[in-house]
Order: sequence, then C-alpha cells, then structure tokens
Amino acid sequence: MAQHVYDDPTFFAGYARLPRSIGGLDAAPEWPSLRAMLPELRGKRVLDLGCGYGWFCRWAREQGATAVFGIDVSEKMLARAQADTGDPGIVYRLGDLETVELGIEQYDLVYSSLAFHYVGALLRLLHEIHRALADGGVLVFSTEHPIYTAPPQPRWSTDAVGNKEWPVSRYLEEGPREPEWLGARVRKHHRTLGTWVNSLIAAGFSLQRLEEWRPTDRQIAAQPDLADERHRPIFLLIAARKWRQSAGTDEPHAHR
Amino acid sequence: MAQHVYDDPTFFAGYARLPRSIGGLDAAPEWPSLRAMLPELRGKRVLDLGCGYGWFCRWAREQGATAVFGIDVSEKMLARAQADTGDPGIVYRLGDLETVELGIEQYDLVYSSLAFHYVGALLRLLHEIHRALADGGVLVFSTEHPIYTAPPQPRWSTDAVGNKEWPVSRYLEEGPREPEWLGARVRKHHRTLGTWVNSLIAAGFSLQRLEEWRPTDRQIAAQPDLADERHRPIFLLIAARKWRQSAGTDEPHAHR
Repeated sequence: MAQHVYDDPTFFAGYARLPRSIGGLDAAPEWPSLRAMLPELRGKRVLDLGCGYGWFCRWAREQGATAVFGIDVSEKMLARAQADTGDPGIVYRLGDLETVELGIEQYDLVYSSLAFHYVGALLRLLHEIHRALADGGVLVFSTEHPIYTAPPQPRWSTDAVGNKEWPVSRYLEEGPREPEWLGARVRKHHRTLGTWVNSLIAAGFSLQRLEEWRPTDRQIAAQPDLADERHRPIFLLIAARKWRQSAGTDEPHAHR
Repeated sequence: MAQHVYDDPTFFAGYARLPRSIGGLDAAPEWPSLRAMLPELRGKRVLDLGCGYGWFCRWAREQGATAVFGIDVSEKMLARAQADTGDPGIVYRLGDLETVELGIEQYDLVYSSLAFHYVGALLRLLHEIHRALADGGVLVFSTEHPIYTAPPQPRWSTDAVGNKEWPVSRYLEEGPREPEWLGARVRKHHRTLGTWVNSLIAAGFSLQRLEEWRPTDRQIAAQPDLADERHRPIFLLIAARKWRQSAGTDEPHAHR
C-alpha cells in the first residue's frame, strides 16, 4: 500500500466510474460466490479491511451483525463511507494494511475484498488478523489471482486461429508488479497460490475453502463479455478459520 | 486411467527413455521439494499409488519404512518393479486408481507422484485414501499443475519482443483433456486448483502445505533450460493430514 493510489485524483475518478463503485456489492460479479463463503452474521462482530465506500459494512449490519468496523487507507473513500451512513453500529477508521494494528478486539469475521494484493507484508497482516479473531472466527477474502498478477502487464492474446488466451509469465518470480490501470501505475504484490495458502497455514489458519471465481451461465447470458473469464481466473476467494490455540499436539497443521 | 496408455508399446518406449525412468528419483527435478514434504519414514507403513518402476518404494525402505505397498495400473511397470527388488518388505499389486480399494489397512503415509491427473474419480479416491490412513497419517502427492493441464494442447509461446509465455485457456472448464505426449493421445483430467484443495477438505483432510514447484538457482545452473520453468508451474505438490475423527465440533473444517 503506502503509495495510496486511491488518493490520486486521476485514478480515483476512474475508480469512481467502475460498475462496482456505482452499484456496490451486486455490481461485482464475484460477490455471490464470496457471499456464499461467509458465516451467518447475526449477532457477530465484523471487521472489513479495505472497506472503501462501506458497501459491505452496511450490508453486514443489514444481516444482523452487532458491530461492524471498517478500515481503509483512503481518506476520500472513508469520507464518503462516513457520509453514507448514520448507523452508530458501524465505525470507520483510517489505516494502512502494511502497518495496521488490529488490537485485542475479538472479531468473529474478518472480511476483505480485493485489497490484499496491494499488501507487501502479507504474513505480518495475517498474524495480526489471527490475533484479532476470536477462537473459531473466520477470515474470508478475495484477491487478484496469481495468474492475473504474474505477468508484468496483464493482457489477453489470441492463438493462431483467433481463440483467446491469457499469456502467463514470471509466475514463480514473486514480488512487486506495477501494471497500468485506470491511467496510473498501480503497485501490487504478486505471490504464488502456494504462498497464499502456506502463509495462512503459517499464521495459524485452517483452510476451509478456496475458489477461483468463474462466471455462471446466467451471468454470461446477462453480460456476454464475461465468457472470456472462463479462460483464466481473475479472482481468488479464500475462507480460513482460526483454529483453537489450546490443542497442543492436536493442532491440525503440526508438521513432522 | 482405464485406457492404460502405459501399456501402449510406442508410449511405453518413449516413457522408458525419460530421464526419470532411467535415473529414478534423483533425475526428477521436483523430487527434492517433494521429499522435503514427507514425514520421517522410520517404522512407518507406506503406500505408493502409481508406483511405476518402484523407485520410491525402494527408497522408502532405505529410509526405514517397515512395510511398503506399491500399486500401479501397468503390468509392464510392475513386472520391472518386481524384478528390481528381492525385498520382502515391499509388496506390489495391480490396481486402477479409478476403482482401487485400499481396504482397512492403516497406512501412515500415502504417496503418489504424477498419477492423480489421470484419475477422473478424484473424490472417490481421496475418500478411499482417507479411510486407509491411520489417524494423523499424511497424504503427500504431486500432480500436473492446472496451469499446465488447462490448455487443450499445452505449449510455449512468445510475446512481441520474444519473451517466453505460457498461454492459458479453458482453465475454469474442468474435464478431460487429450494432449499429445510421447506420440500418443494421453487422457488427463483437468481440474482447478480450487477443486484440488476443496476435494481434499471434503474428503476430511487438513491441508498442510501446497507447493508450486520451481527450479532452484543451482538446478538452473546445472541445466539451463529449466529457467523457463519459472514462467509457469508445471507441478503441484501437496501435503495433507488426516484429521482425528473424534473431534466433533472441534473438527477444523466445520463450515457455518
């Protein structure tokens, strides 16, 4: 993070015009898949990392969450999130996921949509989330898929007979990427799928579900250009559970 | 499986000439990574699914495994495996991973190298392995990576300035693929990384480690053409543990 591209005026103007910025959760095609990975929210304490305009925070309250906390690095986005609600059950605060401290609060769910690929210090953040979750609490997040973040400049190509293909390169070379998006150089951090999984395990999580989002037939019928999304996954969705600390040798990931 | 391409004379002749068929475990560049995921073998009962020439079975006995069982679909390979050992601690038998029954034997390790991508009925096989493992036992296997199995005919390509790329297509369309390899059409089953992970969880395993093999700098120095392997992962390596059945609601993957 640290660059705060979301506070760059050109980028922000482009971002504000994206369907998901205007239409919220229902305008994001991966939302139904991500929602299906969430636990029941009634009576729960929820934290949203990279909450943006606060769409998810408001939705979580509608589902019966007792208390919802939203953290974002962009002052502009938080200002709008704050303006869009009068709900005292939602608390927003400024924070950078590279350095944020989540304290001793006990959350039942930590949620994040498309923010973690901006984070360089992923393992630090996962440890922080693990500590902030109650025993049995879950982390559900989406991030750009490694197949999408690997190439220096992501793009489609075509084979000899005109079929669409997604050229992958440098997949196993982890590190920063600075592709162009919405007229700005956006700094992201490419890591392999193995690193996503092993970092969660190292931080004390038990993997529950891993999805590589694909559009449904119904989504493609309504929006035909989504058909290309079947050639390669653009989003990675993960649900992981904080495993009870008391288990000793029963800890599910003890190795050797 | 079922087609038994390993009993096709042309294919088998080509297969017998591969470095790993001649040089065994040490000729397979991913072996050091896979070996590092194995538990201590001394005193353990080991099952190798798709044992081929028996290289791993013999190595497991050298490491102190008490009893080693090897299963393969190819009579030719088993005949050579049998001829290559006089060790009564190794037992080979013919079996097709689509239908094999692993019985009530209690193994401490089930191992498999590059066989599971031939299996259509993966979830059935994983349930069978789960039942055959002792509590706390582990499954360690390698398979072709989904990035490699997705395209109808896997191949390298080059971008406008001549850099190598790996075109991915049909990644999210799971099902059989019949690429050409060693002069034969070889039937494989493409599944997404999400399906590999979620099938293991559904069968009762707790994921311990997921690796997308990459060559080390030393390997590339010794064999420069391995450098291309950094552009995309060809092998997926997974270690998963059978979680104790008695845990009830403590079961780490209980969802919702």
